[in-house]
Amino acid sequence: MSDRVVMVSGTDGVPRFVRPEEPLLRADDLGVLRGDGVFETLHVRGGEPFLLTEHLARMARSAARLELPLPAEDRVRDLALAACAGWPAAEEGALRLVCTRGPEDGGEPTLYATVAAVKAAVRTQRHEGIRVVTASLGMTADARGEAPWLLGGVKSLSYAANMAAGRWAAAQGVDDVLFVSADGHVLEGPTSTVVWRDGPALCTVPDTTGILPGTTAAHLLSRAGSAGLAAELRMAVPEELVAADGVWFCSSVRGIVPVTELDGKALTVDPVTAQLRDLLGYPG
Amino acid sequence: MSDRVVMVSGTDGVPRFVRPEEPLLRADDLGVLRGDGVFETLHVRGGEPFLLTEHLARMARSAARLELPLPAEDRVRDLALAACAGWPAAEEGALRLVCTRGPEDGGEPTLYATVAAVKAAVRTQRHEGIRVVTASLGMTADARGEAPWLLGGVKSLSYAANMAAGRWAAAQGVDDVLFVSADGHVLEGPTSTVVWRDGPALCTVPDTTGILPGTTAAHLLSRAGSAGLAAELRMAVPEELVAADGVWFCSSVRGIVPVTELDGKALTVDPVTAQLRDLLGYPG
Repeated sequence: MSDRVVMVSGTDGVPRFVRPEEPLLRADDLGVLRGDGVFETLHVRGGEPFLLTEHLARMARSAARLELPLPAEDRVRDLALAACAGWPAAEEGALRLVCTRGPEDGGEPTLYATVAAVKAAVRTQRHEGIRVVTASLGMTADARGEAPWLLGGVKSLSYAANMAAGRWAAAQGVDDVLFVSADGHVLEGPTSTVVWRDGPALCTVPDTTGILPGTTAAHLLSRAGSAGLAAELRMAVPEELVAADGVWFCSSVRGIVPVTELDGKALTVDPVTAQLRDLLGYPG
Repeated sequence: MSDRVVMVSGTDGVPRFVRPEEPLLRADDLGVLRGDGVFETLHVRGGEPFLLTEHLARMARSAARLELPLPAEDRVRDLALAACAGWPAAEEGALRLVCTRGPEDGGEPTLYATVAAVKAAVRTQRHEGIRVVTASLGMTADARGEAPWLLGGVKSLSYAANMAAGRWAAAQGVDDVLFVSADGHVLEGPTSTVVWRDGPALCTVPDTTGILPGTTAAHLLSRAGSAGLAAELRMAVPEELVAADGVWFCSSVRGIVPVTELDGKALTVDPVTAQLRDLLGYPG
């Protein structure tokens, strides 16, 4: 397993290496005081970040929504590439790009990247799948669209509730949570996009619900034709997922993970899973 | 204006001073990566933190809800006192206590404190009051009580939406937001508790709504009798606040700030305001 890499972008835009155990952020950085910043997580394969352009675009959209002056795309791209430079081609990595609002009393945003090896547990999940329970997000599916301050669609650093949902799932003896709206619609996982197959349709939830637009899921749906499927944005209730031909959680590091149980009901693993994983280029 | 003070609690429990500009947190601290931690903000007066015991108790409750191993109360108290030691008695200060879950791959929580001078704008607000608009929190008043993963009542570091609401208020040309539930009930401000007077009743919103239990508001209500008033927990709609004898936003640093306008409707500043401010011991 490779060492973790941390690169920070200097005010001159030149990335410099920081030892992982060396402190990087000030005590008054708004990233920690307020969870006020944006991030992206990317899969590193063959020593290169996967879907870098798409992730950079989403990061810029998140920053714009937070009125956060994210440095220019070239500078964030240079940082991502510098962080991955020398990462072993044979080893799967997870690249994080983080930009906080910086010190509370003003100054530059704090922009940095880390790379770490993908944990063995992730590879296990790809093969064995995950058991999931639904959990209410407390809001109707259209609530966030009408209230921009609720930050629907923004990948901010304020993930405490997402993490709490994960702990709650573990306490129920399952692997993950599927958030549902107060009016019963399927939304997303705390750190993943839900995708399902209904016959010839490969479906995910429309962004109008305030979910985070999934980069990996969007890429998968854009290639659905290669698997003889048609991409579709669709609202669904959990019962429709139980009745679907296949259900997966998609995220950049995990790739495509079959959901094998939803609220205690066993789901069949769709035989198309391996083909979809190959489409995305994740190791089998 | 005094310099900012930063103290960090070492693994031996002994607080040490860190220069404000010196980095303190690792790049992989879950406080920044996930907004995963708890905090408290206290008023420093006469060189001492106000309501320290109450804030320590709330911090411990927040940490328990996050399953975060906050160090023992004595250690957090020692840190708070060490941070305030030498703070000039004549100068109002804001003490922050922060505890994050620490580095992602394990290790101790990161516990630190900062003290800074209270900004002049805060003192202006106490005198001139603030103009406020309502903004939906997207959830019904009972949603968070039924869904512990939504972290109702927890003062976590995940405040990006609270900060976004503040920017949204500024864009509307007002000073702050009053969150209301999807079913129309008054909840709280992004960083304050709402208190109002209805004749002899000094009212605030019950914690069962998932609001953060306000330390300053609770202290004020516990002393309502000294002002000839009776403390009451009450559900209300914004129209009831417009019709109230007085409405205030309470928080530890601001103290008690009159709301002078709600959704464009002018509110009278209650003559009892100065008496309530004196009860809380904030400078007039």
